Amino acid sequence: MASTFGEKLRISVFGESHGNGIGALIEGLPAGETIDFEQLMRFMERRQGGRNALSTARKEPDIPEFVSGIFDNHTTGFPVCIRIANTNTRSGDYNNLAMKPRPSHADFSAYMKWHGAADMRGGGHFSGRLTAPLCAAGGIAKQILERRGIFAGAHLSSVGTVQDVPFPMLPDAAMLAEIAAKDFPVISDEKGAGMQAEILAAREASDSVGGSIECAVTGLPAGLGDPMFDGIENRLSRALFGIPAVKGIEFGDGFSLSEMRGSQANDPFSSENGKIITKSNRNGGILGGISTGMPIRFRVAIKPTPSIAQPQETVSLPQGEHTTIEIKGRHDPCIAQRAVPVVEAVTALVVLDLILSDSEPNYNNIAKEK
Amino acid sequence: MASTFGEKLRISVFGESHGNGIGALIEGLPAGETIDFEQLMRFMERRQGGRNALSTARKEPDIPEFVSGIFDNHTTGFPVCIRIANTNTRSGDYNNLAMKPRPSHADFSAYMKWHGAADMRGGGHFSGRLTAPLCAAGGIAKQILERRGIFAGAHLSSVGTVQDVPFPMLPDAAMLAEIAAKDFPVISDEKGAGMQAEILAAREASDSVGGSIECAVTGLPAGLGDPMFDGIENRLSRALFGIPAVKGIEFGDGFSLSEMRGSQANDPFSSENGKIITKSNRNGGILGGISTGMPIRFRVAIKPTPSIAQPQETVSLPQGEHTTIEIKGRHDPCIAQRAVPVVEAVTALVVLDLILSDSEPNYNNIAKEK
Amino acid sequence: MASTFGEKLRISVFGESHGNGIGALIEGLPAGETIDFEQLMRFMERRQGGRNALSTARKEPDIPEFVSGIFDNHTTGFPVCIRIANTNTRSGDYNNLAMKPRPSHADFSAYMKWHGAADMRGGGHFSGRLTAPLCAAGGIAKQILERRGIFAGAHLSSVGTVQDVPFPMLPDAAMLAEIAAKDFPVISDEKGAGMQAEILAAREASDSVGGSIECAVTGLPAGLGDPMFDGIENRLSRALFGIPAVKGIEFGDGFSLSEMRGSQANDPFSSENGKIITKSNRNGGILGGISTGMPIRFRVAIKPTPSIAQPQETVSLPQGEHTTIEIKGRHDPCIAQRAVPVVEAVTALVVLDLILSDSEPNYNNIAKEK
Amino acid sequence: MASTFGEKLRISVFGESHGNGIGALIEGLPAGETIDFEQLMRFMERRQGGRNALSTARKEPDIPEFVSGIFDNHTTGFPVCIRIANTNTRSGDYNNLAMKPRPSHADFSAYMKWHGAADMRGGGHFSGRLTAPLCAAGGIAKQILERRGIFAGAHLSSVGTVQDVPFPMLPDAAMLAEIAAKDFPVISDEKGAGMQAEILAAREASDSVGGSIECAVTGLPAGLGDPMFDGIENRLSRALFGIPAVKGIEFGDGFSLSEMRGSQANDPFSSENGKIITKSNRNGGILGGISTGMPIRFRVAIKPTPSIAQPQETVSLPQGEHTTIEIKGRHDPCIAQRAVPVVEAVTALVVLDLILSDSEPNYNNIAKEK
Repeated sequence: MASTFGEKLRISVFGESHGNGIGALIEGLPAGETIDFEQLMRFMERRQGGRNALSTARKEPDIPEFVSGIFDNHTTGFPVCIRIANTNTRSGDYNNLAMKPRPSHADFSAYMKWHGAADMRGGGHFSGRLTAPLCAAGGIAKQILERRGIFAGAHLSSVGTVQDVPFPMLPDAAMLAEIAAKDFPVISDEKGAGMQAEILAAREASDSVGGSIECAVTGLPAGLGDPMFDGIENRLSRALFGIPAVKGIEFGDGFSLSEMRGSQANDPFSSENGKIITKSNRNGGILGGISTGMPIRFRVAIKPTPSIAQPQETVSLPQGEHTTIEIKGRHDPCIAQRAVPVVEAVTALVVLDLILSDSEPNYNNIAKEK
Repeated sequence: MASTFGEKLRISVFGESHGNGIGALIEGLPAGETIDFEQLMRFMERRQGGRNALSTARKEPDIPEFVSGIFDNHTTGFPVCIRIANTNTRSGDYNNLAMKPRPSHADFSAYMKWHGAADMRGGGHFSGRLTAPLCAAGGIAKQILERRGIFAGAHLSSVGTVQDVPFPMLPDAAMLAEIAAKDFPVISDEKGAGMQAEILAAREASDSVGGSIECAVTGLPAGLGDPMFDGIENRLSRALFGIPAVKGIEFGDGFSLSEMRGSQANDPFSSENGKIITKSNRNGGILGGISTGMPIRFRVAIKPTPSIAQPQETVSLPQGEHTTIEIKGRHDPCIAQRAVPVVEAVTALVVLDLILSDSEPNYNNIAKEK
Repeated sequence: MASTFGEKLRISVFGESHGNGIGALIEGLPAGETIDFEQLMRFMERRQGGRNALSTARKEPDIPEFVSGIFDNHTTGFPVCIRIANTNTRSGDYNNLAMKPRPSHADFSAYMKWHGAADMRGGGHFSGRLTAPLCAAGGIAKQILERRGIFAGAHLSSVGTVQDVPFPMLPDAAMLAEIAAKDFPVISDEKGAGMQAEILAAREASDSVGGSIECAVTGLPAGLGDPMFDGIENRLSRALFGIPAVKGIEFGDGFSLSEMRGSQANDPFSSENGKIITKSNRNGGILGGISTGMPIRFRVAIKPTPSIAQPQETVSLPQGEHTTIEIKGRHDPCIAQRAVPVVEAVTALVVLDLILSDSEPNYNNIAKEK
Repeated sequence: MASTFGEKLRISVFGESHGNGIGALIEGLPAGETIDFEQLMRFMERRQGGRNALSTARKEPDIPEFVSGIFDNHTTGFPVCIRIANTNTRSGDYNNLAMKPRPSHADFSAYMKWHGAADMRGGGHFSGRLTAPLCAAGGIAKQILERRGIFAGAHLSSVGTVQDVPFPMLPDAAMLAEIAAKDFPVISDEKGAGMQAEILAAREASDSVGGSIECAVTGLPAGLGDPMFDGIENRLSRALFGIPAVKGIEFGDGFSLSEMRGSQANDPFSSENGKIITKSNRNGGILGGISTGMPIRFRVAIKPTPSIAQPQETVSLPQGEHTTIEIKGRHDPCIAQRAVPVVEAVTALVVLDLILSDSEPNYNNIAKEK
């Protein structure tokens, strides 16, 4: 079922870029969880466009309406429907695109799937705008997790070839909070300045640029997850590839592990203050799909925004005559920095689902913070 | 549900390394599909251990028994249960490991999840042996797909730092067949020789080494897949991380895309003999989660076999006293080359499920080869 | 996942009686299906309250807003979100009930499940009001099915001990259309008059009364459905028990079959105009969970509205002191007649899902009416 | 997915009557649960044929082989595969039936679904023989539940028009145990004698006869289950219609409720020894899909065995020429009495799944018996 993920906590995203609205349905949220709406809005603002020269000019308030499932600022156990109105659509910008698929967008593959019936104005259901309700849902999950000492945080680990310093093998919650508070979510502000220069240079060139995001989850107890196809890697990757433009994911040292010897790659077990730990964390806190109690750590690759102002070769549908396209409208020269909170949101949703889905060392056994 | 994946074609894997047997249950296979058992056995032999100095000494015939769902050499539409007996288990080898978790194995995380109840002899349900029924199931899927002109094939793209030449952007079925026929599944036999030297050197050093596998699917029509969370990347990644030791996946140019500009990364549309194509294929045949009609192309990272004969630091359970472990028993110094057909098998299962799950341009519309 | 059903066509219902709104999310609707909104409103009006002395005084326009998934009066293939505002809530009526569970309502069991966190005003998520979005979704499914010659229709088969004449073994679409056009959906208007008298008598006595609904589906081809746990009976029963107050279901001759001999109960095969038929239809068009091509026929039992104005024994929560309750507010003395279109709606959704889920004699093979 | 049910505890049934074997895969069983194999065999013997004149002459030992998931007599947390060999198949008996569908069997509908590819010898995957692995799986679930004070038990409530005395509104575990120990599972042995006479009379007349089964679950705490489509009624009905020949189900007073007034049907709340109870239990322990803490109580209708020795009208496939059929082979004149433990087994599986699926008042909170 395309736009849905999760086992006990199910998130379904709906809406199109230029339709009446967008939103999310969250089923399976535990009852009685308080929601701090101010904190939620601050989280959603992190993905908001239009704040500076790095982002699209489209500004929408993106105020979520809670249609159901919340009463007196707490969850009720019933499905939570979140609806965000589309208020600032200018479909005219896209009219000329309808029958000329934009390179590296979903226009052509969607046309082939739905034979032209889909509403693809502004990218339709594939638009990055759909990540707003994902952030609303994920922001709620983050609050529930944080009350239990579990934090999901990310930083922009590269833009083009400019790289931020990576997370240490064992990032902590304080580091994640510090990054989240920044306007430009990097560990090294100096590297961040280089990345911003890269983005502006791409814009200057009527071009765009890709990037990557590194994410960590701290505080997750050992023993959560499942073998084979429902391990933490399986669950996270399945959900994270739902974020537009994600084209790769690696856990722990990921592709670097493939170049190592076992004696380098293995994380020795040790113990510290009565808790069993690993001395290194090259496996990213996951063995056999199950948490080790060390921080989860992974990195996703984000391709360059496909919409660029340069003329590009394409064809006209349905016959396939050769033509060119110049994409007007409002587009980010790099979406990676705006995707940082989206990666956090999706991660928080997957982790909360993981806990709720675990019948054994379950949700209630993770003590709620007083 | 941990050991199960698929939407309309559901594969469930069961068994433990040192229990009575292992197997797979396949639900949703279309009825009336002929199975060529000889071809299936040849495919399964590609992952078989014990053939040369590169692999474990454990030799098992791995003859699948078809308990149900097959009649007169064809599928009946009923669930297919495949059972493979465990005939060559020597649990004694592992007895000393029970309470000393092996670094980078699932021993510790599984212990924390099931509080010691799991049968972890020989890796239990996490053992690489469980990929045998996956290959049996995937081998059937491959036959069904091939009859419809769809081919999934892979090569060992690296061992340690030695790299095979990569697939071209548009690999074809003939190339995939040629690799599949080789003893050592690489494109460049010269590079292959280097990889084999790397594996033997690792064994010599009582060590192991990682690798990576590149896979392609040809012949898939455009318009298959779903937006957001059930796209082809989501489905493949979720299933492929179920193969032991996979720690990363990238589609098309993957992480390299994150370093590119849009003008480099975008695949221009064109047409050729009346068919709309992309001139390059940096997106790996997938846009918005949906097939473009170009070959699917992706790469997975395989970590080094965690079992190595060198002494390693660990702790004793449950108290966590520091100790060391030397892993005896039969282990491959590199599992990447044996994982090549496993990646093909899982890919074939995901692709067949994708076709069966698509209600619109569906299974029956893909003409069966006469 | 509580408030969701369906395999390829997934319907999720959200909202509470006295919250901001109610609605449904429909995922998996085929693309390119025209929606006749006037026809949809007429269908929804059939369940509407407040039309006569038989129903609750609460009148709400129940105009569905289509948030997503519909463009230019046709489905796009993207998720359809329907939202209905709650405009006429008078929570004051229910305030005194919060801690006194109403007999035979979900108040107590919900309290035990969510420890008081659920918003149970007016029945909360359990309210009959939630059947409005079900009818909106089902009304769309009915239009899609009818274009393919498949009709789902129901009549009120009993109120208290007054019974309508039953469907013949082979009801046809014309009969279903005729009933649907009536204000009081019965076959025999004379029996209908008796039922209405029964309802008014119950109201007069500050009481309520139960009833039953018989439903049929015509035009479904043979060979749809699945063995064992996803047969037509399994799918329909699972969904229909989601309608508040349904306490029983029987297919074909149902419980009467349990009193018969095989020679009486078996439906002999025959053929007519080149089509294989059964001469009788005691099995209700379903054998082994799979359609026979004869009309589907089943009956559901609806318990009396639990809300009655008479004083009833109950306890106060959480301590359990004995007390009594008198339920004020607006309640139907019989909900069975309003549930008739709801049964049709749920049935249409299940049947459309059944067709979409069938990979073999599938959706596209059922010719679309010109 | 046809032959699978369950959310956290998933049961998949495989096999055909005359194939190599039959079995079940159970995923999600909690780890560390002891299995008493003798007790399990005694439970399975309750559905065994060939014990007396009431049953089919086919005798098979039906010894389950535990292929996986069990170690040292306890569950490991890994999938449990159970396999039962088919040792006593005489397909010759059925050869003449292949192209003449037996009235009220799945032969015709299965033929239409799979176009003749299905292996329908002896009923194939639809055979009552498939209930043997269901009993093996359910017998394990019963042991786990009983250790937690939860008992599922059933009796044969009618055969033809002869009725057993019904369960009281509040049956207890002792009563269930007493019935389970009987050769003929009824409350009143006198009524049981009448039922047996009815069965023998049907056999004498080369005919068969239907029946009904009433089932109860005691010890289930209040607050388990879900609203709308995953309530206890939804879950039980979906699974129970998977038992061959079940054509109806009613919960609590079921269809009788539809004839009552609310003042008769409502169950008043009260309290007893500090526990909130209902004084009557006409709703069968379920309100709003959620348990009330009172015993679950429901009844299923079983149609007469469709296989009868009398000549019956049918057609020949695929053309539909009129012909007749006389069904030889081994058949029970009534399957209702053998279905009693099957109903218990399926019920136990659904109830255990219900507990495991509940994230809130969950599995671990139900104290394990010391």
